[in-house]
Amino acid sequence: MSSGELARPLTVALLGGGTVGSEVARLISENAHDLTERVGADVVLTAVAVRDASKPRPGIAADLISDDAAAVASSGVDIVVEVMGGIEPARSLILAAMEAGSSVVTANKALLAADGATLYEAAARNGVDLYFEAAVAGAIPLLRPLRESLSGDKVTRVLGIVNGTTNFMLTKMDEEGVDYADVYAEAAELGYLEADPRLDVDGHDAAAKAAILAELAFHTRITLDDVYCEGISAVTQEDIRAAQQMGFVIKLLAVAERTDDGVIVRVHPTMLPRSHPLASVRGAFNAVFVEAEAAGEVMFYGRGAGGAPTASAVLGDVVTAARNRVGGGLGPGESTYSNLPVLPIGAAMTRYYVNLDVADRPGVLASIASAFADNGVSIQVVRQDGHGEDAGLIVRTHRATDAALRKTVEHLSQLDMVKRVHGVMRVEGEAGA
Amino acid sequence: MSSGELARPLTVALLGGGTVGSEVARLISENAHDLTERVGADVVLTAVAVRDASKPRPGIAADLISDDAAAVASSGVDIVVEVMGGIEPARSLILAAMEAGSSVVTANKALLAADGATLYEAAARNGVDLYFEAAVAGAIPLLRPLRESLSGDKVTRVLGIVNGTTNFMLTKMDEEGVDYADVYAEAAELGYLEADPRLDVDGHDAAAKAAILAELAFHTRITLDDVYCEGISAVTQEDIRAAQQMGFVIKLLAVAERTDDGVIVRVHPTMLPRSHPLASVRGAFNAVFVEAEAAGEVMFYGRGAGGAPTASAVLGDVVTAARNRVGGGLGPGESTYSNLPVLPIGAAMTRYYVNLDVADRPGVLASIASAFADNGVSIQVVRQDGHGEDAGLIVRTHRATDAALRKTVEHLSQLDMVKRVHGVMRVEGEAGA
Repeated sequence: MSSGELARPLTVALLGGGTVGSEVARLISENAHDLTERVGADVVLTAVAVRDASKPRPGIAADLISDDAAAVASSGVDIVVEVMGGIEPARSLILAAMEAGSSVVTANKALLAADGATLYEAAARNGVDLYFEAAVAGAIPLLRPLRESLSGDKVTRVLGIVNGTTNFMLTKMDEEGVDYADVYAEAAELGYLEADPRLDVDGHDAAAKAAILAELAFHTRITLDDVYCEGISAVTQEDIRAAQQMGFVIKLLAVAERTDDGVIVRVHPTMLPRSHPLASVRGAFNAVFVEAEAAGEVMFYGRGAGGAPTASAVLGDVVTAARNRVGGGLGPGESTYSNLPVLPIGAAMTRYYVNLDVADRPGVLASIASAFADNGVSIQVVRQDGHGEDAGLIVRTHRATDAALRKTVEHLSQLDMVKRVHGVMRVEGEAGA
Repeated sequence: MSSGELARPLTVALLGGGTVGSEVARLISENAHDLTERVGADVVLTAVAVRDASKPRPGIAADLISDDAAAVASSGVDIVVEVMGGIEPARSLILAAMEAGSSVVTANKALLAADGATLYEAAARNGVDLYFEAAVAGAIPLLRPLRESLSGDKVTRVLGIVNGTTNFMLTKMDEEGVDYADVYAEAAELGYLEADPRLDVDGHDAAAKAAILAELAFHTRITLDDVYCEGISAVTQEDIRAAQQMGFVIKLLAVAERTDDGVIVRVHPTMLPRSHPLASVRGAFNAVFVEAEAAGEVMFYGRGAGGAPTASAVLGDVVTAARNRVGGGLGPGESTYSNLPVLPIGAAMTRYYVNLDVADRPGVLASIASAFADNGVSIQVVRQDGHGEDAGLIVRTHRATDAALRKTVEHLSQLDMVKRVHGVMRVEGEAGA
């Protein structure tokens, strides 16, 4: 579109002037010419709502700064960008923006995972767009492909490394032999942990993203409460070394899968074969691996966090919402028509790794094998290690339900030749698994 | 959208009933319920134009088959899907479809790379959509992210493995030590090669895809003629082994990059560090690595060819075009506002690998180092191998222009202590390169 046929200027207001907000403001100003050409209209920043208006915000014109978020939200601009985070007041402000006729771009994974339905409904009611590419895996263009490119296909499974901090920690533990406590201290020192570190290490941040991915993939409403969640704080160097010896690597995975009976969404430390494309995703990078019936295996990889990458995703959504304003269309709304049952974790079928300290005496292996068999769990590989006080067994199972594995572990713990069951972890990504 | 508020049925006609066409027809029928829900209207296949109407087409109702492609193209359906390939009659049929008011979804990389502008212009003139996700890297959702998700960012470079056949061949040469001639024979036997195998091994197929990617990335019209192209037939086991010893792997890369002076688009065998995300893309898989100013590094990975993966990409476009019909919007058109100069290959700056057979006598290294220096090419690493008749030198350079390297190689060839310059290859993907 040439500059001769520009539509009226499009107005954008920001809720939040932190790292991401400042970066969005900078990109709108620096890329103004590109945005005008790509949208077919000038894109003008009208206001940035911040908590403390007296704090200097380099790169944002002083007269744009406001501490009246409610006024900015309901100012009736074309697009309101919400990058403040948290459930409230973000939700009320987004709803006010939509009531005022603004399309909304948000990076707020917590709000979407907790109560996305309310936002979608308000968007539909007011005839405005709701985009949120930045909410999952930062700069990686992922949600648009799931919502649009794969919309003629059937997604069967999504496996994601969607929390950069825990991936940084697990990578260090794997590559440098560092203990969990030390790598936790390092992540804290580097400022990688969220203000509430449990969001990272207990898997809650990944769980919110898993809920968003699962809803898009399976056209079924999924909230954070539907996601089974286990963090990485119990992962030990013993587990890491056992994984290495077997040719595996440990990752905190978000898994969303469709079974014959419904949908299961779970976040937990997982052993992956080193040959799996996700295994080589190191440090703070994110990646999401999608399995679809016709497309086969597709992976998206990139930076999952940081001001500039997140701002890139936000701006992409701003351009799309702006083009819709110029062209008169609307993006996709909530799609939950499949309405599949969400199954409890007990129904999940995976392979397992179990690491046991055992007494060094004849018949141990036979008794332990029986404990697995009696609970319907079939053993794939077993390895005996050490002698005397250090005698150990590492077992990898064939596919079994989580419920069966739990019963097996309980049963094992009651055997007097079993001193300790100290590692139990799901195994994904093996061929045929 | 619930079934209670469906729009009128949307009609789709196929031009081409081969592997991809049959798979598209199958998906439209099998996924009918999902398509209806996702589009907000029934999606109905009205005709499949084929060359030989007497051939049985399992899965396609006999009364849909037609050998009158012109009539099918101009039948005025909502969406015409072109999966016949080739420049003509595909182009005329697509233009006829657009004149009849149909949006067009095509997988035709050759046509888009040769004359995409004509298609874009016809789409704009007739107010219809043109989508072509399947034209590059099969099922990998790649073009939509480039056109939309990254539309608020500035792409600086695109590196892609976009031809599965040559990647299969190079992977075999790397992993099994097979010679080019043997792996060529194997690819032919497996039916992996195009009817004209030069499209694969001489890099023309990759070049067409590079042109399409470059145009989207840099908002500049790029056609096949703008792409420098070198195939893989000169890659030897000596090169493969030299790469392995240095920690590199050889890939046929499509590279599109923006420099201060313009855009360079090139396809050639390339040495990549084994730690680079593209290095682990094995066999027939494709991947495209995008570098953008704010987003940083992003990679897309998946199956680049095959009936089902390609059909998945086509159906995604059909759903998007259909949603636009229902919602009254239009997708993005051609964007060439940047109109950057396309630079010749001589201006490309990369590192190089040069493999020389030399006379085994004192002073050889000094003379050869001078030949590089005299032409303004700085040496990064040099390794001397063998003695007597087998004396060899492997040189890796710092960044230099292609023009300077060519002069250096000419100069080297004229030195009497140089018996043969038998490997010259670009090196990409090193940190700081």
